[in-house]
Amino acid sequence: MQPLSIAENRNAAPVDPLPSWNQGIIKARILNFVKNVTDSESTNYITPEDRIAVFDNDGTLWAEKPTYFQGFFVLNRLEELSKSNPEISRNPQLQQLLNKNFTNLQLLTKKDIMSLVMLTHSNITQHEFNRMVQKWAETAHHPQTQKRFVQMVYQPMNELIDFLKHNHFKTFIVSGGGIDFVREALSNVYGIPTDQIIGSSIKFKYISGTNMGNSTILREPELASFNEKEVKPENIQLHIGKVPVFTAGNSDGDLEMLRYTADNNSPGKSLEILVHHDDGSREYSYDTGSENVLIEAQRRNWTIVSMKDDFRIIYPNTNSTN
Amino acid sequence: MQPLSIAENRNAAPVDPLPSWNQGIIKARILNFVKNVTDSESTNYITPEDRIAVFDNDGTLWAEKPTYFQGFFVLNRLEELSKSNPEISRNPQLQQLLNKNFTNLQLLTKKDIMSLVMLTHSNITQHEFNRMVQKWAETAHHPQTQKRFVQMVYQPMNELIDFLKHNHFKTFIVSGGGIDFVREALSNVYGIPTDQIIGSSIKFKYISGTNMGNSTILREPELASFNEKEVKPENIQLHIGKVPVFTAGNSDGDLEMLRYTADNNSPGKSLEILVHHDDGSREYSYDTGSENVLIEAQRRNWTIVSMKDDFRIIYPNTNSTN
Repeated sequence: MQPLSIAENRNAAPVDPLPSWNQGIIKARILNFVKNVTDSESTNYITPEDRIAVFDNDGTLWAEKPTYFQGFFVLNRLEELSKSNPEISRNPQLQQLLNKNFTNLQLLTKKDIMSLVMLTHSNITQHEFNRMVQKWAETAHHPQTQKRFVQMVYQPMNELIDFLKHNHFKTFIVSGGGIDFVREALSNVYGIPTDQIIGSSIKFKYISGTNMGNSTILREPELASFNEKEVKPENIQLHIGKVPVFTAGNSDGDLEMLRYTADNNSPGKSLEILVHHDDGSREYSYDTGSENVLIEAQRRNWTIVSMKDDFRIIYPNTNSTN
Repeated sequence: MQPLSIAENRNAAPVDPLPSWNQGIIKARILNFVKNVTDSESTNYITPEDRIAVFDNDGTLWAEKPTYFQGFFVLNRLEELSKSNPEISRNPQLQQLLNKNFTNLQLLTKKDIMSLVMLTHSNITQHEFNRMVQKWAETAHHPQTQKRFVQMVYQPMNELIDFLKHNHFKTFIVSGGGIDFVREALSNVYGIPTDQIIGSSIKFKYISGTNMGNSTILREPELASFNEKEVKPENIQLHIGKVPVFTAGNSDGDLEMLRYTADNNSPGKSLEILVHHDDGSREYSYDTGSENVLIEAQRRNWTIVSMKDDFRIIYPNTNSTN
């Protein structure tokens, strides 16, 4: 009976590779792009080695409100550090953070968070840091949804990553967040290897150790790269060495890498995606920080994804009402 | 008859994955390491996502005499530039190079070459640079062997890369050479994607262009990272984010990444390889620049590969006498 069941399979409706996306012009565009560039008969065919796809992280692959989730990790580390360092308790701004004043936390820019990263994430070994992030990712919960932060990844975007991988795209994260924070918290969640995750970084220092057998990497309190805006295409060149053909972002920090992708590929041979936060009931509704990229996306006819209209669900393991 | 031929296949001698390596203790060590760490029943088992293998390039994967091959590319660019820039012809050191004084070229350190890289490799777009390297790789020949430089890769090491890939290792190049030079000249030769090639780098600058549609990456005349010695493990952390379990090098510039690998894995769960240039008849015989790593390799019982004894052939498509 096996041949018959194979035949039945052939006649069955094709499996939808993006079941968490609503039918519509946006989903059709994505499916059409991938179909075209992977069809060796198409004039838009792209060889597998050039199928480079890059995704921003905060606000593109997971939520970023009330503030970047790395801010909560900073808070967590600050609490730990304050136990042994009285200077932290004496600093009013840090004390406000320790009192879980989220209004205050919301006011932090990514740059502020990076400064706090210097305080809370450096002068420890890379190994220690990795364990801290892993523990945080396993235990910390979002103050509003009560979900673990790593459960607040967008299921439709997760499916898009898998769909691209299935079509022999190599997928990368190009985040403004800390490179090792994103790696240790999310590499397993997205199924994207650590070497395909790019982000902001502090200086790494190789220490040979006092005894043979204990060389290690120390995290220095010095910013090496703040991976936002024009630095994103620069770091894409440094880490990947190719121009992406697929780029997804959500904010003005992603504008340059979206431009870089659109400008350096022939029409039809790249896809630029902008995730638009317009769903105040299931997620958050805001344009602040995305004003410029929204204008350019409309002008250049990039693919603007409405979270309200195009996402059937937001988070994994939830039904269509959440 | 198909089942029979399958059975015959099963009884046939296993295919040697390293046919260009002579039988002996070194080849056995390599085969044994890979067998152990890929055997899920072994106490030394390493999961595929942690099978990170890094290779130095100059002197480890291809030859480096009479000088680093990137030096010849520099010379080639210098000739091109001198046509429009009379200052180059007036500089005695550069003039000596232009007169193909290889003795002079041999005296250049990697740092000297990097300075010349500033002169010859910057203030052009990344796209232009890539095309220049590609053209050089397709056409330039070694002054002594008359082979194209890209044909002077070591066939046994090429096989080792393939063998590791076949066993689900992710292979990286961690070179002192220019990151994009190595990518554009050798990515196709080794079958290692550009994003898995790490090297020295100059500063990349994103330029938005004066018109919409022409943003690009410009190569700035400023060193960003000189990927030698302690910088190698630092850049491994930046680009890969994991500790390698397999590291191959040949000079003191590789000592720190070999140490880092040996120190941060349990015994039996890593392999440290040192390619020893002891074959003056088929390649070159020299220890200069490898004195320290040779001492440490012997002391710590790392795997020292004798090119004379362990390599059956040196270059691809050559018989055992060459």
